[in-house]
Amino acid sequence: MKDHHHTADGARVLADLNALRALGAYKTGVHKPTFSEPHLQSLQWLLRKLPEAGLSGEIDGIGNVFGTSAKAGRKLLAGSHLESQNFAGWLDGPLGVIYALEAARVINPDPDIKGAVEVASWCDEEGHFGHFLGSRSYVGDVTEQEIDLARDRTSSRPMREALEAAGLTNRPRRAADHGRHIGYLEAHIEQGRTLEDASLSIGVVTSIVGIWQYRITFIGEQNHAGTTRMNDRKDAGLAAARLCVAIDDYFPSACGPRTVWTTGRITLDPGAPSIIPGRAELLFQIRDDNTRIVEHLEALLHELAIEAGAATDCGIEVARIRTGKPAVMDEKFQRAIEEAALTFAEGKSIRMPSGAGHDAQVLATVMPAGMLFVPSIDGISHHWNENTDDADIVRGAKVFVEACRRLLSN
Amino acid sequence: MKDHHHTADGARVLADLNALRALGAYKTGVHKPTFSEPHLQSLQWLLRKLPEAGLSGEIDGIGNVFGTSAKAGRKLLAGSHLESQNFAGWLDGPLGVIYALEAARVINPDPDIKGAVEVASWCDEEGHFGHFLGSRSYVGDVTEQEIDLARDRTSSRPMREALEAAGLTNRPRRAADHGRHIGYLEAHIEQGRTLEDASLSIGVVTSIVGIWQYRITFIGEQNHAGTTRMNDRKDAGLAAARLCVAIDDYFPSACGPRTVWTTGRITLDPGAPSIIPGRAELLFQIRDDNTRIVEHLEALLHELAIEAGAATDCGIEVARIRTGKPAVMDEKFQRAIEEAALTFAEGKSIRMPSGAGHDAQVLATVMPAGMLFVPSIDGISHHWNENTDDADIVRGAKVFVEACRRLLSN
Repeated sequence: MKDHHHTADGARVLADLNALRALGAYKTGVHKPTFSEPHLQSLQWLLRKLPEAGLSGEIDGIGNVFGTSAKAGRKLLAGSHLESQNFAGWLDGPLGVIYALEAARVINPDPDIKGAVEVASWCDEEGHFGHFLGSRSYVGDVTEQEIDLARDRTSSRPMREALEAAGLTNRPRRAADHGRHIGYLEAHIEQGRTLEDASLSIGVVTSIVGIWQYRITFIGEQNHAGTTRMNDRKDAGLAAARLCVAIDDYFPSACGPRTVWTTGRITLDPGAPSIIPGRAELLFQIRDDNTRIVEHLEALLHELAIEAGAATDCGIEVARIRTGKPAVMDEKFQRAIEEAALTFAEGKSIRMPSGAGHDAQVLATVMPAGMLFVPSIDGISHHWNENTDDADIVRGAKVFVEACRRLLSN
Repeated sequence: MKDHHHTADGARVLADLNALRALGAYKTGVHKPTFSEPHLQSLQWLLRKLPEAGLSGEIDGIGNVFGTSAKAGRKLLAGSHLESQNFAGWLDGPLGVIYALEAARVINPDPDIKGAVEVASWCDEEGHFGHFLGSRSYVGDVTEQEIDLARDRTSSRPMREALEAAGLTNRPRRAADHGRHIGYLEAHIEQGRTLEDASLSIGVVTSIVGIWQYRITFIGEQNHAGTTRMNDRKDAGLAAARLCVAIDDYFPSACGPRTVWTTGRITLDPGAPSIIPGRAELLFQIRDDNTRIVEHLEALLHELAIEAGAATDCGIEVARIRTGKPAVMDEKFQRAIEEAALTFAEGKSIRMPSGAGHDAQVLATVMPAGMLFVPSIDGISHHWNENTDDADIVRGAKVFVEACRRLLSN
């Protein structure tokens, strides 16, 4: 048994990541929305690569790609996603897929390991058409009706149309084969500064926070911006602004130590310079791994929305459109990553929660799951400036492969 | 001389307005953006109607329609516009065009009046592609370059493309024929509650307020909404909200008696639920007929923007993209409308400024100009609920025709 068989080939990992970066390249990152041409090209690229790891590739009816092994013994599922946010980074997603591919390339041909790594690329983790549609489909949590209604959040293109254009209509959606896998392992960039600030190499994820999302609508009175006196106005845009400021003023004293909240979108209707907005819509989200804290914040959100509406004479609707489910990562998986980091990252690892959502939280509902993080330069993500040192990428790959080996050998 | 020759035919006016309402009908109003199919149909409708008033019709290279008279004597120019705001009312624009057409139909064939009413329909008064492009073209204030750069604010369609699709490429733009007209008269719905609240029938416009418009941009740091701690954020959307609220808090004690201000649009970039906005843009406007007050408010706006940026760690750009030019209406025109209202509206008129911008303010830069208002139900405009009682429409038409007769006879 030669030692180099059991560890990742750093140059190969970097070459693969750069090959994927070239598909849909945008500035230093990529623009690869779900079912865009470069996303579909990336899925095809992966299908061509899987045989290198002794895996037979298949794309299912929702755009998930699976690499299946015929090797006897335990199977570990590993992967991430290949689409990106709009005009975003090159590693968010592909890193986890290439680590999984690399682990399969190292481990599957090795007769000394009685088991195999199987690779998954989950479709639409970035939520262009929904949230976690690919992994949720796999665990049996997506109905045909949800797909019927799903539309691209940027272009409003129906998901059915995108699936048809991708040639995926009438293809079955693959469901979890219960008992086949000992669990699921996913690697990702941290997308924060915890590792970088502490000069650490590996984050061992303990839990993934839940995401609660709200659509808050203020209904005012659309009117002429020149002839409607200030006192006669019901300005829905002003109501929205008042709510954002009130949240910023009152949430900090009510939140938990790691709670975050974001107003990602404000839409004023009709949005013309000479018209008082008659309607304003906010997309607001809260993330935490503590459901009790979020329940408390949600009550506060309702209060603040009522106050903002009252101050501007506008009606209000607060709709929770997504309910968070914090996910706990499996202790055995955490230990395997930690031990792998002792060998390949000088033990420079830390246990930490994930503030970002990941497919691992969905997989965790049907099998043990684990995640590891590598550092993000400046903590930047969901932006084309997102990056990670090559040395950190290679180190992470070696830890990942070793963690897979340990999980399959235990 | 039969008396009914000298007054408007109310049924004919209402029938014409309803014919235009049927083109691009939306709920109780119309959706007739500049160069949309129903807008172009409306221009063709007008071209077919002009001969009824002894006018020869012509459409020019920017989509203005003119009805020109061969009759000897003085010429009075009258009109308004035929496009609408998106999903807006049926009278904003068409009322003034049909009043002008009706005045021409009554006056031009009358041998006892030594002069004629000529009709204009100005293109894009509602500012889909710019602001007052049609009337500004007529007074010589629009360059070819401005047209090259103009795009539909909703669809981003280039104006050149829209002109070509409308068959207007290579057609000359008609310029004001200096000395031809004794002035310009325009009628419009009030778009406010002044007349309705005081049970009056006619507003005699004294001045049209200027519109100052600003593009305010906050530059923060686009980042992941889950992994970026609250203290590490530079949220450009929050900066925008803070500015809106600060304006609402501080402008009332610094403004004039009739100042109005509006944030018509807020755009967060990239506008996704899980991304902290790295950039936020506000379209903000101030209207007043007092330039000094606006200068004071503009200085305050800069201060408040700097504070909002400082509070959120965001950069700021405040760009004035439109500079208001308040316009004074001609005293002789005001008197003619007032006297006409004595005959046809029981003297129920009031002199008042216009808070809305109108083509009359552009025409006023090259000839005497006047405007009259009819009441708006509930003051609603720029919304499909916009409406005026039929009786008020007919009364306004009679006052308008009489004012034209007086101006041509003086």
